[in-house]
Amino acid sequence: MDKARRVADSLTTMTEMIFPNDTNTLGNLMGGNLMRMMDVVGAICAQKHSTRIVVTASVDNVSFKESIPLGSVVTLQAKVTRSFNSSMEVVIDVWAENIPAQEKVTTNKAFFTFVAVDQSGRPIDVPQAVPETEEEKLLFDGALRRRQLRLVLAGRMKPHEASELKSLFDHLE
Amino acid sequence: MDKARRVADSLTTMTEMIFPNDTNTLGNLMGGNLMRMMDVVGAICAQKHSTRIVVTASVDNVSFKESIPLGSVVTLQAKVTRSFNSSMEVVIDVWAENIPAQEKVTTNKAFFTFVAVDQSGRPIDVPQAVPETEEEKLLFDGALRRRQLRLVLAGRMKPHEASELKSLFDHLE
Amino acid sequence: MDKARRVADSLTTMTEMIFPNDTNTLGNLMGGNLMRMMDVVGAICAQKHSTRIVVTASVDNVSFKESIPLGSVVTLQAKVTRSFNSSMEVVIDVWAENIPAQEKVTTNKAFFTFVAVDQSGRPIDVPQAVPETEEEKLLFDGALRRRQLRLVLAGRMKPHEASELKSLFDHLE
Amino acid sequence: MDKARRVADSLTTMTEMIFPNDTNTLGNLMGGNLMRMMDVVGAICAQKHSTRIVVTASVDNVSFKESIPLGSVVTLQAKVTRSFNSSMEVVIDVWAENIPAQEKVTTNKAFFTFVAVDQSGRPIDVPQAVPETEEEKLLFDGALRRRQLRLVLAGRMKPHEASELKSLFDHLE
Amino acid sequence: MDKARRVADSLTTMTEMIFPNDTNTLGNLMGGNLMRMMDVVGAICAQKHSTRIVVTASVDNVSFKESIPLGSVVTLQAKVTRSFNSSMEVVIDVWAENIPAQEKVTTNKAFFTFVAVDQSGRPIDVPQAVPETEEEKLLFDGALRRRQLRLVLAGRMKPHEASELKSLFDHLE
Amino acid sequence: MDKARRVADSLTTMTEMIFPNDTNTLGNLMGGNLMRMMDVVGAICAQKHSTRIVVTASVDNVSFKESIPLGSVVTLQAKVTRSFNSSMEVVIDVWAENIPAQEKVTTNKAFFTFVAVDQSGRPIDVPQAVPETEEEKLLFDGALRRRQLRLVLAGRMKPHEASELKSLFDHLE
Repeated sequence: MDKARRVADSLTTMTEMIFPNDTNTLGNLMGGNLMRMMDVVGAICAQKHSTRIVVTASVDNVSFKESIPLGSVVTLQAKVTRSFNSSMEVVIDVWAENIPAQEKVTTNKAFFTFVAVDQSGRPIDVPQAVPETEEEKLLFDGALRRRQLRLVLAGRMKPHEASELKSLFDHLE
Repeated sequence: MDKARRVADSLTTMTEMIFPNDTNTLGNLMGGNLMRMMDVVGAICAQKHSTRIVVTASVDNVSFKESIPLGSVVTLQAKVTRSFNSSMEVVIDVWAENIPAQEKVTTNKAFFTFVAVDQSGRPIDVPQAVPETEEEKLLFDGALRRRQLRLVLAGRMKPHEASELKSLFDHLE
Repeated sequence: MDKARRVADSLTTMTEMIFPNDTNTLGNLMGGNLMRMMDVVGAICAQKHSTRIVVTASVDNVSFKESIPLGSVVTLQAKVTRSFNSSMEVVIDVWAENIPAQEKVTTNKAFFTFVAVDQSGRPIDVPQAVPETEEEKLLFDGALRRRQLRLVLAGRMKPHEASELKSLFDHLE
Repeated sequence: MDKARRVADSLTTMTEMIFPNDTNTLGNLMGGNLMRMMDVVGAICAQKHSTRIVVTASVDNVSFKESIPLGSVVTLQAKVTRSFNSSMEVVIDVWAENIPAQEKVTTNKAFFTFVAVDQSGRPIDVPQAVPETEEEKLLFDGALRRRQLRLVLAGRMKPHEASELKSLFDHLE
Repeated sequence: MDKARRVADSLTTMTEMIFPNDTNTLGNLMGGNLMRMMDVVGAICAQKHSTRIVVTASVDNVSFKESIPLGSVVTLQAKVTRSFNSSMEVVIDVWAENIPAQEKVTTNKAFFTFVAVDQSGRPIDVPQAVPETEEEKLLFDGALRRRQLRLVLAGRMKPHEASELKSLFDHLE
Repeated sequence: MDKARRVADSLTTMTEMIFPNDTNTLGNLMGGNLMRMMDVVGAICAQKHSTRIVVTASVDNVSFKESIPLGSVVTLQAKVTRSFNSSMEVVIDVWAENIPAQEKVTTNKAFFTFVAVDQSGRPIDVPQAVPETEEEKLLFDGALRRRQLRLVLAGRMKPHEASELKSLFDHLE
């Protein structure tokens, strides 16, 4: 691992068309298939930041508010928000378009965490992420809080140690 | 929607073999593919409880602690923990076996939420879930707390209203 | 290969949802796709009994009596009935449910034979299968007869040597 | 249904390359995937004979003698052997080539039965199959015997009624 | 069809990871799979320009100079160059990265033509494409020449009528 | 590389059924999926001619005149037209049938070029192709002209050197 890298350098865009096998009985994209796409775009993004092989470490709470019908075009945009030693938090924004109907909806915002590993699968440190825009800075700051929630939920941090997490109850995005 | 149903009646077991296309550069199952399998087994489980078409509403924080190599056998077991009007929380336990090597590891525990809908996609009430074993009762009780966290994270409940959630910081599983 | 193993220890359950690409022009599961699922669940079951890599050696006559429409949930349950040196006969029971319609039909009963092999593909002996229930004992007894029919059909046994097979014409299940 | 049709008119050839996801842990084609290919080529062949939608009715005993490694080219050739009212028996010959190694092996001969149906899935009569070559005539004659075995195994014919089947024990191919 | 649209508005980016089933015996992406990806990104791009359902009308000569190994990240970028009544020419640039090795190669430049159709598949006029940058203007100008070559190769234009095409032999990009 | 080989020896036939995931919003086969099938059948054909591993080098202009609906049977027939050192031009004829409707249309004629390589991916010479029928001879003669167009379009030959190509404007097929 060498030097810090700009958040913008990790920006990754994936565009997919929804095919019949991606859909459920109602003809809409299944949540699990969307999560599979998110995992791929997030992994590419984390690879770009770390120039390493990466593995998925965790997925934060994802909610599915909008149904995405067969034939829609789904766009996923991922960027690293912050790194911690060998791990990187990636934010993924998803929107869906029914182009002939000229409809476009924001469908999901999700946080995935990836760990950079060497060829034998051992964690390896990654560059720091340097936020530049206002939005990137907000995401960078929030990453600490989200990480504490992740550790508390995984039973790896005691709640009273999660000093940043308390603010969760005040500042929700 | 008619009467309450036993949690045990929704138990669904899925066994899958890990094929080459499910794996990443290190030859291990990609996290996104495991989430896709979880979504399918969870949806079948929620269908069994509600005898309705269901759609994925949300996925709680999932962490991936163990790598699952090519050729492994993955078993996913899902059951409804509790229902709330039209929504059902499903707990999914996942373990992986390398049978020739006689290795077996518990890999994930995840909570998915599904909503029962009619043919035009409108939410429709589902039976209450009746827990019977000690473990089912613990999961039933915890469901309220997890639901509040979900609503707070989705910005649909104010933290100070999440009375059950406060206990999260005391009772973590 | 060490000791004998209980039939019940090999029990393997697979649950699948029928997606669009699994279906034919009438919107029903294609027979070939069901056989593919049977092969996977049977191979996992034979792996469990033998703790070895296994390869498919043969499939007995399978008939498809019921059509299984798109969106159905198919459950396959496999267990070893008996072993012969390096080969294991596995019985696979299949049923399909249209859960919203509350319809459930038994669709198939099939016998697959798998051979345990080492890393270079050479056959290797497996534990004996110990039947315990009445049904398991009937399947264990019938395995000899089905094996003779298999050998006769494959031209590897002369019909007059198939002493057990004659009873086929008296005791059919 | 109009007139009889030559067996040769139903001849269907399918050539496939074996990709990674078709293979098992040893890098060989899984039996279930080969059966899926057989089902597709057989269905096309039965469609050609009947000019109808067809569904798979049954598969006779199939044995897998040869392993087919990744990268092989598999050729499947199907033709109708004989028709019975709405059903058609199709024989499928399979061989595999490792072209760079200049190796070619005959791997399988299998009999599938398809039923012609109308748009609502009801069986509908098909043309008679007219065998011309010596091999086609042998397959035509044997079809009666194989059909009796199928009916006896499915419990739909009493063994003592299977007059043709007795000869199975004398004339095996 | 209403007004003209900027070329930049049709820009579509697709990022894909190369999985095992996408590769040939040497472990490199098969040409046919890359063309399938090009077709999807091109169709999305043409949908964006026309806000219509589109179908692939033709693919110009594509050459594959670089091999793209398993695990690579492939990026495809498509934009409309010019429209002619109901048809749109789309240029697709493809590059591949082996991110851990920090290697990046331009692999392909291809021209696909799509036709906008209504729900019953009839061609329907699309907006004119307005090029703005120097590169977009060059592509706009060249589109006429490439279209004549396409028509001549398809036997739908006599060579002596292809006035623009003559310049092909002077100005090749 | 040893001796010349007859064009007829490379003939390869592939028959495919169009499944839901192969289709676009209108329920017709996507162009990119047809090109993927062409690439596979062409590669098998070039393997047969060269008894070598092959990689796709280029695809000539392909136009898609006919839509191929879901459930159609597509037949692809490939044969080598001519070889040049390590490269082989393959012509692929495609037709589609809706068998129950008794409709059959010729849909495409395409030229793919493959290069034979050794295990480390280096080009290696292949046998000459010997045309026998009138059609094979015409394709053999035209191969030189098409090769010059390919080289000119790829910027690897100056137009004034393409002596054969000039005749393109007189003799179009």
